[in-house]
Amino acid sequence: MSSSFGHKFKITIFGESHGKAIGVVLDGLPPGIKLDMEFIKSEMARRSPGKSSLSTARSEADEVEILSGYFNGMTTGAPLCGIIFNRNVRSEDYSAIRNLMRPSHADYTAFIKYDGFYDYRGGGHFSGRITAPLVFAGAIAKQILSTQNIAVGSHIKSIHNIEDKSFDYVNLKAETLESLRYLALPVLDKDAGEKMEKCILNAKEEKDSVGGVIEAAVVNLEAGLGSPFFDSVESRLAHILFSIPAVKGVEFGAGFDITKMRGFKANDEFVIENGKIRTSTNNSGGIAGGITNGMPIIFRVAVKPTPSISLPQKTVDISKFEESSICIKGRHDPCIVPRAVPVVEAAASVVILDFLLERYGEKWIQWKN
Amino acid sequence: MSSSFGHKFKITIFGESHGKAIGVVLDGLPPGIKLDMEFIKSEMARRSPGKSSLSTARSEADEVEILSGYFNGMTTGAPLCGIIFNRNVRSEDYSAIRNLMRPSHADYTAFIKYDGFYDYRGGGHFSGRITAPLVFAGAIAKQILSTQNIAVGSHIKSIHNIEDKSFDYVNLKAETLESLRYLALPVLDKDAGEKMEKCILNAKEEKDSVGGVIEAAVVNLEAGLGSPFFDSVESRLAHILFSIPAVKGVEFGAGFDITKMRGFKANDEFVIENGKIRTSTNNSGGIAGGITNGMPIIFRVAVKPTPSISLPQKTVDISKFEESSICIKGRHDPCIVPRAVPVVEAAASVVILDFLLERYGEKWIQWKN
Amino acid sequence: MSSSFGHKFKITIFGESHGKAIGVVLDGLPPGIKLDMEFIKSEMARRSPGKSSLSTARSEADEVEILSGYFNGMTTGAPLCGIIFNRNVRSEDYSAIRNLMRPSHADYTAFIKYDGFYDYRGGGHFSGRITAPLVFAGAIAKQILSTQNIAVGSHIKSIHNIEDKSFDYVNLKAETLESLRYLALPVLDKDAGEKMEKCILNAKEEKDSVGGVIEAAVVNLEAGLGSPFFDSVESRLAHILFSIPAVKGVEFGAGFDITKMRGFKANDEFVIENGKIRTSTNNSGGIAGGITNGMPIIFRVAVKPTPSISLPQKTVDISKFEESSICIKGRHDPCIVPRAVPVVEAAASVVILDFLLERYGEKWIQWKN
Amino acid sequence: MSSSFGHKFKITIFGESHGKAIGVVLDGLPPGIKLDMEFIKSEMARRSPGKSSLSTARSEADEVEILSGYFNGMTTGAPLCGIIFNRNVRSEDYSAIRNLMRPSHADYTAFIKYDGFYDYRGGGHFSGRITAPLVFAGAIAKQILSTQNIAVGSHIKSIHNIEDKSFDYVNLKAETLESLRYLALPVLDKDAGEKMEKCILNAKEEKDSVGGVIEAAVVNLEAGLGSPFFDSVESRLAHILFSIPAVKGVEFGAGFDITKMRGFKANDEFVIENGKIRTSTNNSGGIAGGITNGMPIIFRVAVKPTPSISLPQKTVDISKFEESSICIKGRHDPCIVPRAVPVVEAAASVVILDFLLERYGEKWIQWKN
Repeated sequence: MSSSFGHKFKITIFGESHGKAIGVVLDGLPPGIKLDMEFIKSEMARRSPGKSSLSTARSEADEVEILSGYFNGMTTGAPLCGIIFNRNVRSEDYSAIRNLMRPSHADYTAFIKYDGFYDYRGGGHFSGRITAPLVFAGAIAKQILSTQNIAVGSHIKSIHNIEDKSFDYVNLKAETLESLRYLALPVLDKDAGEKMEKCILNAKEEKDSVGGVIEAAVVNLEAGLGSPFFDSVESRLAHILFSIPAVKGVEFGAGFDITKMRGFKANDEFVIENGKIRTSTNNSGGIAGGITNGMPIIFRVAVKPTPSISLPQKTVDISKFEESSICIKGRHDPCIVPRAVPVVEAAASVVILDFLLERYGEKWIQWKN
Repeated sequence: MSSSFGHKFKITIFGESHGKAIGVVLDGLPPGIKLDMEFIKSEMARRSPGKSSLSTARSEADEVEILSGYFNGMTTGAPLCGIIFNRNVRSEDYSAIRNLMRPSHADYTAFIKYDGFYDYRGGGHFSGRITAPLVFAGAIAKQILSTQNIAVGSHIKSIHNIEDKSFDYVNLKAETLESLRYLALPVLDKDAGEKMEKCILNAKEEKDSVGGVIEAAVVNLEAGLGSPFFDSVESRLAHILFSIPAVKGVEFGAGFDITKMRGFKANDEFVIENGKIRTSTNNSGGIAGGITNGMPIIFRVAVKPTPSISLPQKTVDISKFEESSICIKGRHDPCIVPRAVPVVEAAASVVILDFLLERYGEKWIQWKN
Repeated sequence: MSSSFGHKFKITIFGESHGKAIGVVLDGLPPGIKLDMEFIKSEMARRSPGKSSLSTARSEADEVEILSGYFNGMTTGAPLCGIIFNRNVRSEDYSAIRNLMRPSHADYTAFIKYDGFYDYRGGGHFSGRITAPLVFAGAIAKQILSTQNIAVGSHIKSIHNIEDKSFDYVNLKAETLESLRYLALPVLDKDAGEKMEKCILNAKEEKDSVGGVIEAAVVNLEAGLGSPFFDSVESRLAHILFSIPAVKGVEFGAGFDITKMRGFKANDEFVIENGKIRTSTNNSGGIAGGITNGMPIIFRVAVKPTPSISLPQKTVDISKFEESSICIKGRHDPCIVPRAVPVVEAAASVVILDFLLERYGEKWIQWKN
Repeated sequence: MSSSFGHKFKITIFGESHGKAIGVVLDGLPPGIKLDMEFIKSEMARRSPGKSSLSTARSEADEVEILSGYFNGMTTGAPLCGIIFNRNVRSEDYSAIRNLMRPSHADYTAFIKYDGFYDYRGGGHFSGRITAPLVFAGAIAKQILSTQNIAVGSHIKSIHNIEDKSFDYVNLKAETLESLRYLALPVLDKDAGEKMEKCILNAKEEKDSVGGVIEAAVVNLEAGLGSPFFDSVESRLAHILFSIPAVKGVEFGAGFDITKMRGFKANDEFVIENGKIRTSTNNSGGIAGGITNGMPIIFRVAVKPTPSISLPQKTVDISKFEESSICIKGRHDPCIVPRAVPVVEAAASVVILDFLLERYGEKWIQWKN
């Protein structure tokens, strides 16, 4: 069981990398939302492969066909299903190595869980490709959030050992997030971006791969969303973020670094600014007691290096139950981080919309407007 | 909404720090489990306050009274409710500062969410005290897991800037985890432990607090638990871990550090050892594609410094809507990390039991034995 | 797994008939609700045994002790746990017949499901007594609904072969429902009530039992609650109603009788009355396409005769795996229907509140007022 | 929110009558199940329109295209999405009467709930057509159940005032259920079937419609499935059955008639037959305390007359907010009952498979075989 997520805004994903189509069902969308198809396409394009030398040569337009829940250019309130047909598929790339478990891929665990019946081609349902429907869901959520002035965005905090600057956790603006959307390598420090690019190409040349950290934010979000314990904002955000393939760490605000601060420094003191209660620092990342406090939500996501590399690796042949080695051919990203950026934003957008619909109900949009 | 977690093993918590009682309902426990009350008491004692100069002076025996689901010394299969009456309560400590929002506490966010009606005494339902029922749930889960040889344990990886050694991710044994249970400061490197103790007492003396990192593990767990995407082992573990108050980061295996490795180094190559498929490294932390691979599950949890400190801090008085300052008196832990250790283990135990019951059904225990 | 129900208003029940206590956790209650303890007590009293010759001689005050989520006489928004200690327990009544599976009780099915480890005393967790916490939950829900003028009530439509009149499906008023609350046998036709009483006492005298039908209604509920398919109002109401022990049928509006009408007669035509859209008949029971239409919600619930009877019955002795016979002594209701009336109303109140909180969010009450 | 149902076997439906496609995502299917496409087609054909004079003239082949979760002719364990493109659509039939709320249809309630943005054509997402994906899901579930010898089937118990015989609740055999599959009007008494046909055609001729009762059964199901209270077999079956459009009543075993029996007669006494514990009657319909007892599960479903009739009816014009009248043209079934038969069976199959997967886990099939 793996396909559904959400409470009032529920997404259900399906599909395999080399199957007929991948897709998602969105349940709980408010009715009467005019979908901005250009915006959705541009979000899909941010994730889609084949754009530059930094990503895989597999090129997919990732056009979403909406099958339901959409009428006269607007959402109806009924479940909206969007599908993407898989077109540029080369399954022969995989059959040769079917029995060779790719290191740090899901081949072995899928083999055990599904008793050998899973669709192994291109990672099947475990493929990063299945995040395309999530980006579609997130694009719609993001568009709806933007009508309430809420912005979701991110930058690449690091690639391998190259670091970008951090967001200004206290004064981060929607405009900053918006400007990052148009960058192939969204960074705050242009020089860092150039070094990152070289770092990725260098790894590619050496048949290896690199990972990195994405720093994301939600701004202009009100205080009061979330709950203590099992419906904390951190819990639900982390839940969906750890669903994204290759994510191995999630932290909020100062994150792991907060453990190196004393309490006095770590605590976010309250001040009143322009008639509003704020905090003068934001080590909490906009969340206290599991509930938003009105400050920017800040979180970072660790993305591991692409496990698909052309270097020879030790492995086992599952059909013969003996040790072997593997060189992964195919077309792969030397670094998945840039393409993971819109996925992380989509995941966050889905969660935030869900929290808003829970707090304010189905008629949230009308009520707020 | 915040109180329930789990699929086949569902826990529902309730209570406030200064209310009549706190407790938990456990649904889905297999019938016929003889509860080891001594073990449960010892787990509760690991979390309970007042044991040493390292923790708060509030002393609570935390005796659990089982109201249901327990008959003739065994679980019945019906919901088991355990409650803990709050006895050593000094609510007057809090009423004086009721309107002063404690920095990095949930006072302000709770005020907004619950329109000022929450029970503010001692943090109310947001109190770390509410993790006591979680430890009770975890103790039962841990006991059941141990019948299948599965062990859950942890050590303090760091306090402030003092680091313990790491677990041996590949060869970690249940015995190592078991031996850590009996330490007040569970560390692998005794010297580090002594430094940590000094560090905590030093912070206490200076009316400040410190945080740290807990490294936890599950060993002897089979491959095949979990799912891709929304029911990944990482997703569900992170979900409950971020429900624990003060947790600001969660990472698996090499975690954030994996982003600094090249793919070739990060990947866990497969080998065959003693007729079993294993990996020669464990940067994945025992999970690939969201599914366990039979290696030890390894994760780390960042715990922030206790926000309750006696140093004066800036804040706002919510009743007057004006800036003010606060010195938190009361009885507080200068470092919550040692008491968070059994909570983290409990959370993990609850999740792992749930995954096993989902995979093997209600009759798991009988089937396996 | 059995204990939780609800989406935004979630109840979790626990307890056994002869255990220490029974209870319920209510999650999602709006904060700041002043609980009317007298009203709650009166609802509990409607269900509690020992009131008259019509019910069991076991007498329980059913006093609820609130452990959490309640502060200064008001809900806090945190989970509210209410428990009822079992006091008047005579477990020896049951041990003698422990191995004799009572016909049409849950003894046998519980034995199979829980491998013989369930608490068999007085039906354990299967006891009708576990509906007391549900009535507590329902009383709170009902009180909240009443602040919005929404009324939930019912009458006994039939006992055995004696029929009461039906509600006026179109013009039913809250006052009618309110007046029924105070009747030991809530009926619309006093004569029918007297005959029902005789019928019950007659069955009692003959060591037998009788069942009946409860007709319930929700009035002054707005149009627009519910959803097509799996969140239809019928689906969720029926779900909880069939959770009540002894319920074997549920029907809405004209129910099974609608199958004997032609479409023209069955259809509810629309009219405009006093500037509001209504239907001139209400065979739909206030629900079309799974969604409320603003007319009274009407449903009927079939309650079987109490399976506990003193007449000798054939059964099996599970310990010897041989046929045997049983005479159930103990204290039992000759007819459970009168005591099931407040349970049915509670169940409906819980569901309706849940739908309202889903549609209008956590701030429903403030928004509406 | 409406689209998902199930615990371990979760179905998510989407689509509108006149949209591009309708479909379903099935999550939790065991891997390695070879789908019997001929059987699936035959189940789809049982529901599809245009087969005889008894049903609508709209003819749809209802061919399911599987997009995911299916590889080499077998399930993979990943979510399986099946879609059906809508081909024979005449939307102009509906636009003329768009503002005229069809009596006892969902037009008005959908208008209110979705603020006028729903897809009104052919009932949109409220259409009985959306049960086609449910039949697809049910066909797969039924096929899996049959590998364990569990059979699900039904007959038409009544059309209008014409009654078929009842099932033999005690000795019902899988063969009886199987033989009913091939009948256009599945009845036990051939004469009753002929009268039903006349009754339907008579209503059609008079531009009216009729309803009826479906009696369904599950045989060869083991004891021990289900739970007390909110996961009772009755609760979950009734939940999904009331999701089927036009269903207004559900009863188990003797159902509403049990209220007219004395306890002694209603109770099902236990006997031992061929070394197995059984009951000598089956008024409980195979369920006691919410849990299966190994006897046939028996339930009946009340299906209202098709609300679409050509006779003139009073209604309101929602755009003008004034009273009006309507004659529904289009192509409609004079009686929906025969086409609802496979839908009811599908719903039951989905629920039973879900209970089995919960009780025995993901490896149920392998374990049992």
